[in-house]
Amino acid sequence: MEADLITVEEALSRIGQNVSLLAPKLMSIDDASGLVLAEDLRSKINMPPFRQSAMDGYAVRFEDKGVEYLELIGEVAAGVDASSTQLKQGQAVRIFTGAMVPDSADTVIRQEDVVQLNSRIKIDIWPKRGANIRPEAEQTSKGEIIAKSGDVLNPARLSYVAGMGVSKLWCYPKANIAVVITGSELQKNTEDLRPGCIYESNSYAIIGSVKNIDNQYLKVFYLNDELKYSIEVFKTQLDEYDCVIFSGGISVGDYDFVAQILDDKSVEKVFYKVKQKPGKPLFFGKRDQQYIFALPGNPAAALTCMYVYVNPAIRKMMGWSEFYTDTINLSLKETIELNGGRSQFLKAKQDGGSVDVLEYQSSAMLKSFAEADCLVYLNGEKACYQKGEIVKCYKL
Amino acid sequence: MEADLITVEEALSRIGQNVSLLAPKLMSIDDASGLVLAEDLRSKINMPPFRQSAMDGYAVRFEDKGVEYLELIGEVAAGVDASSTQLKQGQAVRIFTGAMVPDSADTVIRQEDVVQLNSRIKIDIWPKRGANIRPEAEQTSKGEIIAKSGDVLNPARLSYVAGMGVSKLWCYPKANIAVVITGSELQKNTEDLRPGCIYESNSYAIIGSVKNIDNQYLKVFYLNDELKYSIEVFKTQLDEYDCVIFSGGISVGDYDFVAQILDDKSVEKVFYKVKQKPGKPLFFGKRDQQYIFALPGNPAAALTCMYVYVNPAIRKMMGWSEFYTDTINLSLKETIELNGGRSQFLKAKQDGGSVDVLEYQSSAMLKSFAEADCLVYLNGEKACYQKGEIVKCYKL
Repeated sequence: MEADLITVEEALSRIGQNVSLLAPKLMSIDDASGLVLAEDLRSKINMPPFRQSAMDGYAVRFEDKGVEYLELIGEVAAGVDASSTQLKQGQAVRIFTGAMVPDSADTVIRQEDVVQLNSRIKIDIWPKRGANIRPEAEQTSKGEIIAKSGDVLNPARLSYVAGMGVSKLWCYPKANIAVVITGSELQKNTEDLRPGCIYESNSYAIIGSVKNIDNQYLKVFYLNDELKYSIEVFKTQLDEYDCVIFSGGISVGDYDFVAQILDDKSVEKVFYKVKQKPGKPLFFGKRDQQYIFALPGNPAAALTCMYVYVNPAIRKMMGWSEFYTDTINLSLKETIELNGGRSQFLKAKQDGGSVDVLEYQSSAMLKSFAEADCLVYLNGEKACYQKGEIVKCYKL
Repeated sequence: MEADLITVEEALSRIGQNVSLLAPKLMSIDDASGLVLAEDLRSKINMPPFRQSAMDGYAVRFEDKGVEYLELIGEVAAGVDASSTQLKQGQAVRIFTGAMVPDSADTVIRQEDVVQLNSRIKIDIWPKRGANIRPEAEQTSKGEIIAKSGDVLNPARLSYVAGMGVSKLWCYPKANIAVVITGSELQKNTEDLRPGCIYESNSYAIIGSVKNIDNQYLKVFYLNDELKYSIEVFKTQLDEYDCVIFSGGISVGDYDFVAQILDDKSVEKVFYKVKQKPGKPLFFGKRDQQYIFALPGNPAAALTCMYVYVNPAIRKMMGWSEFYTDTINLSLKETIELNGGRSQFLKAKQDGGSVDVLEYQSSAMLKSFAEADCLVYLNGEKACYQKGEIVKCYKL
């Protein structure tokens, strides 16, 4: 039976191969923080757009060097159009950082090097010709590529392209995600618990683990274990989501029906069952541009699958070129013995270059997961991993 | 003049000393993802709340071991109250994972080890007495502490406490943040650029760099460099924000007026000016429970101050015990020579255990910041940092 399971590596590789990018959308830069660009962006302006003072000081004509007193004929604040300001021989203007340098000036003297006497100034130290002026287009020329398709709009890049006049841009949008909670034993935590029931909690883990996607793109459906109702929902409401994540209903029991639904519908199975612990009965399939995961109902198994498989798929949909979950190599603090030949993900805590595998690894329990900051990955090719051995760890 | 500057270390330490935690709020668990707990939480239930089957299989009385056929008297699905189900001698019930084990049963046989013949079953392999049953309260007892004040509600912890029946909990709330953009040269990027003006872009960097806070808690105000208007706004609208971040208006120029406002108001200065590059004219002050930062207007300087100073302050307000920005020690790929005795933050990119300092370090430019994933920190105590030297890097 274990023979038809695929390996963790194969499952990850099939996610990479099968998930396509969402269709790009033209959006306002106000909504683009953290998204991935779907076009090369060009600057709409020269930056600076004019010769700009780099200092608070005085704009002068360098040819006046040697003149004892210059006549102060006005001032140019930032934001002011100075193109009509004309410096004649022996004249200067007060100028501020970021302000436009009048065409007739070619040098800015720092205010620390100047003594101002009413309407005259005396320059103590002359810098080089052209000093303290940022030339037009020094940073960026109009039409220059300022960001490329595939670039993530991190805070600096977003700000950079905003400064170059970009107000709308093509991005990969946020994925719309439906989380479908199955299990008639599950109750909401605002109710008193009925005999035989437990509180539903997987939705919190699943939604909480999806990064960079606001709540408005995430919707939770609660289904009872009734086949007909759930097929109905699947046919209609779920169609509008880019990614559907089922929680529970995928194991072998008579009441586990999600696999049946997926079979009945035209969902193409990419894989079902991975040689891993926890999370063996993980299903991944697709249907046109929609991706469907069915996670085991055990909380720790569901959350492990979210970090290792589902979030990479979502990142790929949203255009990330590095979409797999970050890993780090750390040295085991204690020897770990495994039973069974499955790969294991173990809740663990980083400690410098080492890693502590935590107690309570049961897939039904989240106690240790709450303390963990990584999952130690052991590929199961051997039964014992020695203290000090370097192992791959998935960052949470 | 450099003598009255404080060091980076001193500035960071004063932020830690001066910022207090926000007043905790009682909130729905639906709104608590990523927040920090402000109380010890106790489980409202035993978990499991009843003796729970760990398998799909058959619940039996162990004393019937040896009987060839057991009579199947029904089934117990997950979510069903089985307290009235009575097994008499020689009887069994079908049972599913997570379902309540009837009181009269003491063992669950895996379905793989059973042959079912209509209303009878034949058990091939008997496990130990009590097998495949999770005892009541095996994971957690009612009243047990399940999370402590100061714990971050990460996905696993949130799900864990939700499963224990917690629906409301005291947390440190999200900070309300006002970003005040000053500078009459700044235009919105939906307009054509007027002579002497540039596009406002710092708001994108500032807001984009604030983590874990939804847009609804972030408000941008655009002010012209007019003192009266801005004082008016500060007096009224800004009062409702936990943190006010000014961008620009804090340097030495005549038109830089933010320091004046802060002086005029009862804002207590904690520090003004840090011995660093970029970001020397950084101001930090407080006014009752409100924290005020004034950032330099240069984009790269403003964003550096966000990562190094402002975000730690916000995290501290929100209850994080580890609120300073994560650092990592990396080895310089090239020798770096500094001029001036100020500490420097250099845009850089991690490459395994090494770090590449990028080109274009000007505080007016964001080109390199967009490519960076860390800031190399050089404390300025010496003029030259050698290739291969280990340096502290702030993660972005």
